[in-house]
Amino acid sequence: MPKLITTRTRIADLGKPRIIIIGGGFGGIEVVKALRGFKAQVVLFDKYNHHLFQPLLYQVATSGLETSSIVAPFRKMFGSQNDFYFRLGEVKKIDPAENSIETSIGRVKYDYLVLASGATTNFFGMAELEKNASCMKTIIDATKLRNKIIRSMEYALLAEEKAAMKSLMNFVIVGGGPTGVELAGALSELKRNVFPRDYKELDLAEMQIHLVESSPRLLNGMSEQASAKAFSFLTEMGVQVHLQTAVKAYDGEEVLLGTGEKLFSRSLVWAAGVKGNPVEGLDGALFTKSNRVMVDQYNRIKGYENIFAIGDVALMEGDEKFPKGHPQMAPAAQQQGKLVAQNIIHLIAKKTLRPFSYFDKGSMATVGRHKAVVDMRGGIRFQGAFAWYVWMFVHLMSLVGFRNRVFTFFSWMWSYFSYDRSNRLIIGRNEEKSILEEPLLK
Amino acid sequence: MPKLITTRTRIADLGKPRIIIIGGGFGGIEVVKALRGFKAQVVLFDKYNHHLFQPLLYQVATSGLETSSIVAPFRKMFGSQNDFYFRLGEVKKIDPAENSIETSIGRVKYDYLVLASGATTNFFGMAELEKNASCMKTIIDATKLRNKIIRSMEYALLAEEKAAMKSLMNFVIVGGGPTGVELAGALSELKRNVFPRDYKELDLAEMQIHLVESSPRLLNGMSEQASAKAFSFLTEMGVQVHLQTAVKAYDGEEVLLGTGEKLFSRSLVWAAGVKGNPVEGLDGALFTKSNRVMVDQYNRIKGYENIFAIGDVALMEGDEKFPKGHPQMAPAAQQQGKLVAQNIIHLIAKKTLRPFSYFDKGSMATVGRHKAVVDMRGGIRFQGAFAWYVWMFVHLMSLVGFRNRVFTFFSWMWSYFSYDRSNRLIIGRNEEKSILEEPLLK
Repeated sequence: MPKLITTRTRIADLGKPRIIIIGGGFGGIEVVKALRGFKAQVVLFDKYNHHLFQPLLYQVATSGLETSSIVAPFRKMFGSQNDFYFRLGEVKKIDPAENSIETSIGRVKYDYLVLASGATTNFFGMAELEKNASCMKTIIDATKLRNKIIRSMEYALLAEEKAAMKSLMNFVIVGGGPTGVELAGALSELKRNVFPRDYKELDLAEMQIHLVESSPRLLNGMSEQASAKAFSFLTEMGVQVHLQTAVKAYDGEEVLLGTGEKLFSRSLVWAAGVKGNPVEGLDGALFTKSNRVMVDQYNRIKGYENIFAIGDVALMEGDEKFPKGHPQMAPAAQQQGKLVAQNIIHLIAKKTLRPFSYFDKGSMATVGRHKAVVDMRGGIRFQGAFAWYVWMFVHLMSLVGFRNRVFTFFSWMWSYFSYDRSNRLIIGRNEEKSILEEPLLK
Repeated sequence: MPKLITTRTRIADLGKPRIIIIGGGFGGIEVVKALRGFKAQVVLFDKYNHHLFQPLLYQVATSGLETSSIVAPFRKMFGSQNDFYFRLGEVKKIDPAENSIETSIGRVKYDYLVLASGATTNFFGMAELEKNASCMKTIIDATKLRNKIIRSMEYALLAEEKAAMKSLMNFVIVGGGPTGVELAGALSELKRNVFPRDYKELDLAEMQIHLVESSPRLLNGMSEQASAKAFSFLTEMGVQVHLQTAVKAYDGEEVLLGTGEKLFSRSLVWAAGVKGNPVEGLDGALFTKSNRVMVDQYNRIKGYENIFAIGDVALMEGDEKFPKGHPQMAPAAQQQGKLVAQNIIHLIAKKTLRPFSYFDKGSMATVGRHKAVVDMRGGIRFQGAFAWYVWMFVHLMSLVGFRNRVFTFFSWMWSYFSYDRSNRLIIGRNEEKSILEEPLLK
C-alpha cells in the first residue's frame, strides 16, 4: 500500500493562463464567478470545502439558524463552470520569483494570483484574553459559542452560590460593531423569549448582557442616527451598554474594564477587531499593523506585477472617503473581486486596467425583532420594523444558493411565529470525553 | 469568585415520589411523556441536552440531512410538563442500598429509577479495529463520517498512485442490518448522483462500496423476502455484498476478511454490533456479554424492587418469539417505556403490575430512491417504491417535533427533485489546526 504523501496538487496544465485564488470568501467567489466563460484556468484554494456567510454566524451562535443554512460547498457552487478547479488545502507561502505557491498539498505555479484570504479575530496581543475569550469568525466559533451559552445556563442552574450563578449568566460582548450589536440583541431575545420556558428553575432577572465599546458610539461606521437608535433599542431590551470603555484583561472569570470596573463573567465574546490573514513570502513592509497588505488602485500588491489582494486582507489607499482603507465588509470585497477578475482579463488581453472605485451601498445592522437600523445612499436612513424587514430581505437574497435561502426563510418564519429559536443544541465537540469534563466546572 | 465545584444537583424535594430516568433516547422519553400529569417528580439525566433520532443518522453522514433536523432539545420537548426536571449530566454509579445515584453533577436520591441508557458500538474486543474504524451511533460519529467521506474524495483527487486513489475511494461497511444497508445504499447514490458532478477529475468507476455481513443474509431480523430484495437492490446499485463473511482485522489501510480476502480501504464503517451502556453499582452477574441487564417481565432489574431497565440496555427473557431478548429497536424501547411508567404509577398506588408483551409492528429498511423493504404484521411484505414512500412517511411522523418534521420533509423534497444531497460540508472539528493536518495524509 503506497503511502499517501501528496506532493502534487494535480492541477492539469491546460495551456491557458492559470489564475489562482486564495480563499473562497465574499471576495474570492466573485473573482471565480466573474471569470466564468473566460479562457483561463481558475483554481480556488480554501482550507474548508465551503463558503461561509459570516453575517449570519451570530444566528448560529444563538440557536436561530442551522450551520448548513449559511454555508455553500464550492464544488456545488461552481460545479458547472468549465476549467474551474477546487483544491482543499492551505496556502503556506507565495514564491513570487518562481510564480508559485507552496500549499499543504503541494507546490503549484500561477500566472496570476489573487490573495483573498480574509481576516481573523484580532486580540491585539492580549494573550490571556485570547485564551479565555470566545470569538465568532468561523462555524466552529459559532457552534462553540452556542454550546457555551447553553452549557452556562445548565450550570447556572446547579451553582451552589449566587455569585457563581450570576457569573454564569453574565454575558459580556466586546465590540460595538454590527457583530457585537447583533449578538447582544439576539442574546437578549433568548433571555426574554426562550430561556424563561426552558429554565423555569432560574431567575432570569439575574441574567445580564453587557456590550462594551471603546469608541463613543455603537456602529461607528454608520450614521449618528443609526448609532443612537441601536443604543436605545439595546437599552430598552435590557442590554447594559458601556461606551468609551476598553477591556483591559479577562482571566476567564473577571473582566477588567478601562474604567476600573470589574464584571464577573464566565463568557466573554471578543468581536472588537480583526486582522488580515496574510501568507508568507511577500514583502513584509507592505503589511500594516493589522496585517492588511497595501495594494494600488487596481488591487495589485505594490511591487508585484501579477499578484492581487482583495477584501479584508487588502488595504487600498487613495479613496478620499476611506483614507484608512475601505471598510472590511462584504460589498467592498465583492466589488474588488469583480474588478480584479476584469483587470486580469484585461492584462491578459493587454488592455488598460480600470481603477477601483468603491460604491458605498450603505450599511445595516439588526438588533432584534422589528428593530434594525439602515443607512442608504443619498442620506436615506431609517430604523425600526421596516428596517428589520429590509435587513432580512437583503441578507436572505445575499445568501449563496437557492436552497439556503429557502431554508433560512423557513427558519425565520418559524422563529417569527413561534418566538422560538429552535436550534439550541449542544453537539459535543469532544468525542472521547463526556462534554461535562470541560474546564468550566473544574 | 467562588469556585464552580458543583456537588449538588439542586433537584428540589417536592414531597412527591421522585422518578429518575437515565437517558433520553426512545425509551427514556416515553417514560417521561407517560408520567405527564401524574403526581410525581420526574427527573431526566442525559449526557447531551437533546434527544437524537438515530434511524436517520446515516442521512447526516451522507449529507442528506442537517444534524438539527434529527435532534430535539429536552427542555423544549418537556417545557410544559409540570414537575419535570432535566439535568445535563452523566450518571456514574447507582447506589441501590442508598436509593441514590452518583452523577457528574452530584449525588441525588430516587424513589424509582429507570435505566434507559441505550447502547453503544460493540467492537467485540478488537482494539485495532476500534481505533481505525468509523462508527455511527451519535451525531459526532455521523459528522465525522461525513467529513471523512468528503475528505477522502478530495484526497483521492490528489493521490499520486492509482492504488492510493482507489483505497481512498473504497468504502467498506461492516454489518448487514438496517444501518449498514442504508448507509451502503446512500453512498452508492452519492456515487451515482452527486460525485460525478462534484469530482469531474475523478474516475468514479474506481469508487467501490463493500457491505460485509457475517450471517447468511442481510437484514436477518426481517423476512427472507426482504433480505433477498435488499440484496438485489444493493447489487443493482453497484454495492459489492459479502455474505457469511466476517472481518478479522483492520489497520486503517487493509481490511482482512474471514475468507482470507483483503480489501484496501481507508474508510471502514463498523455497524456490526452494539452493546449496552451499563452503569456501575448493579450486580455484575445480571449483565450479559453484550452488557444487557436482565429484567423480569415488568422490566424490573432482577433483585431490585425499584430499579427498572428498558430498551437496548435491557434484556427481558420469556418471550417465545424473542428468546434472546427483544430486538434492540425503537418500538421495543418505546413500548417498554410506556409500560414502565404505568407500572411505576401502579406500584405507587399499590396496584398490580402489568407484564410486558411486545407488539411487533414489523420492520423496514431503505436502500435508495424508490427502493425500500417493509415487513408488516400478518405476513404483509412489500418492497420497492411504495415501501419507500411508507418508510419515509413513518420516519417523518416519528421524528420528534413538528419543526423537525417540516424541515426534514423539505430536505427530502429538495433531494427528491434535485437528486442532490445538499449538506456535503466539512465542518472541521479541530479548532486549532487546519483540518488538513489530520492523520489521513501523514
